[in-house]
Amino acid sequence: MEQGGGATIGVDIGGTRIRVGRRDGDGGFVAERTLTPPDATDGARAIVAMARAIATEGIARVGISAAGPLDFARGITNPLNLPGWHGFPLVGELARQLDARVFMDNDANCAALAEWREGAGRGAATLVYYTISTGVGSGVIIDGQVHHGSHDTEGGHQIVWPDGPACPCGSRGCLEAIISGTGLRARFGKPAEELDDPAIWEEVAKYMAIGIANTAALLCPEIVVIGGGVIARGEQLFGPLRRYAAEFTRLVPVPTIVPAGLGQDSGLIGALVLAETQRD
Amino acid sequence: MEQGGGATIGVDIGGTRIRVGRRDGDGGFVAERTLTPPDATDGARAIVAMARAIATEGIARVGISAAGPLDFARGITNPLNLPGWHGFPLVGELARQLDARVFMDNDANCAALAEWREGAGRGAATLVYYTISTGVGSGVIIDGQVHHGSHDTEGGHQIVWPDGPACPCGSRGCLEAIISGTGLRARFGKPAEELDDPAIWEEVAKYMAIGIANTAALLCPEIVVIGGGVIARGEQLFGPLRRYAAEFTRLVPVPTIVPAGLGQDSGLIGALVLAETQRD
Repeated sequence: MEQGGGATIGVDIGGTRIRVGRRDGDGGFVAERTLTPPDATDGARAIVAMARAIATEGIARVGISAAGPLDFARGITNPLNLPGWHGFPLVGELARQLDARVFMDNDANCAALAEWREGAGRGAATLVYYTISTGVGSGVIIDGQVHHGSHDTEGGHQIVWPDGPACPCGSRGCLEAIISGTGLRARFGKPAEELDDPAIWEEVAKYMAIGIANTAALLCPEIVVIGGGVIARGEQLFGPLRRYAAEFTRLVPVPTIVPAGLGQDSGLIGALVLAETQRD
Repeated sequence: MEQGGGATIGVDIGGTRIRVGRRDGDGGFVAERTLTPPDATDGARAIVAMARAIATEGIARVGISAAGPLDFARGITNPLNLPGWHGFPLVGELARQLDARVFMDNDANCAALAEWREGAGRGAATLVYYTISTGVGSGVIIDGQVHHGSHDTEGGHQIVWPDGPACPCGSRGCLEAIISGTGLRARFGKPAEELDDPAIWEEVAKYMAIGIANTAALLCPEIVVIGGGVIARGEQLFGPLRRYAAEFTRLVPVPTIVPAGLGQDSGLIGALVLAETQRD
């Protein structure tokens, strides 16, 4: 947590936009944004320029939230829709150009960290975050640190329906194949926003609840935070989700299940929290 | 890891026997044993006498591996078949009588710790242990510490077959309901030792592999250690288990799957490791 003499900067790299920000000292932040350049060298140059513009006193630490998959060992992000970034040593380049310590993690892990520190899961000793979006991502926070294990968690690829629908990952019956936007469209022929049959959302809740019950059995999180577009469904999703989770979770405490609280800012906040809290 | 001036003692409390031991300095240990007294006051007295007999120079730290369920906050073990131990403040009593620091965890967590430190899972940063016995127990070791979360893990109660057989826990299709000794007897009418149909062991392997794939998705352990009586099946179990785990585990590394290496000593070794490594 050594902050040195300079500012701490967060960088949120999405497929469409890059945001670079810092805390303003009043609980908010000042941030700049730009469209994500297709070429990583241009991207790094833009990040450096924005960071210097908002931290004229110098920069000590940088956190990056990036679309995965990441190569953690080499500090590279390989966003699926940005081939011009693949293989570019982003962490090393920013560390060199800014003369700062640079930390990077994927968007789901950074959102989990943000929700743990400042959002809906504040202060939980063990927190698991699921984002239900185009796919289903996960982030596991234990004692304030992102848990990666041997690679990185992919909680959306838990099998909750053996012999269920095929998943692009190669397995069957993963959460992602059943309840993600892509999975729902494949199964019901429409995007999730146009699915209004309550039976569909009851089923989404049931399978997500099996995933939560299994998460509780294996990790006993106090809190499970759900993010992604589906949280706009509100009680249509969270009502049956809590009911099924209570039914399926036995012998261990039923985790508190809450919608994510930080919305579009979770990437930038997560990047800041990463830089502020990551063990050196 | 402050060892103070005295010895470190391990205590393994099973439903039938209590063992008390210490390291002998040559990689083995010296231990005493007695039948588990039905009354906890007698049990504590026996433990204190055995500990003093093998550590005449005084005792600094004590680790206890106990049959669960445990009340961690109050230092109480409530073994199902020993009602005379329920409510007895074992940790506090041993701390007082021996003037030592006393740590207690359940048998599955202690076995996990033992396998991580000295057995089949040596040195893994993330290790998950499953014991397939009368029930199915689990232990999660992250960076050398037992992960409890909000209570304690119960990985045997992951749901791997929704609408599968009813489990005594109240849910359906838990690993325990399908592949434990109790589950197998309920489903096939015979104890596990008498089940020789390879199709049954293929099915046991398949459901355990779903549990391992889900464990990998959520935690990315380098190693999964399997303990309990079933490991005597050898390749009849581990062959299909590794094959199915490789089939079901996607996007994250397939963990190495190994049989437990410490056998009957895992409780006592785990108790010693607990006392040696538990953060104060």
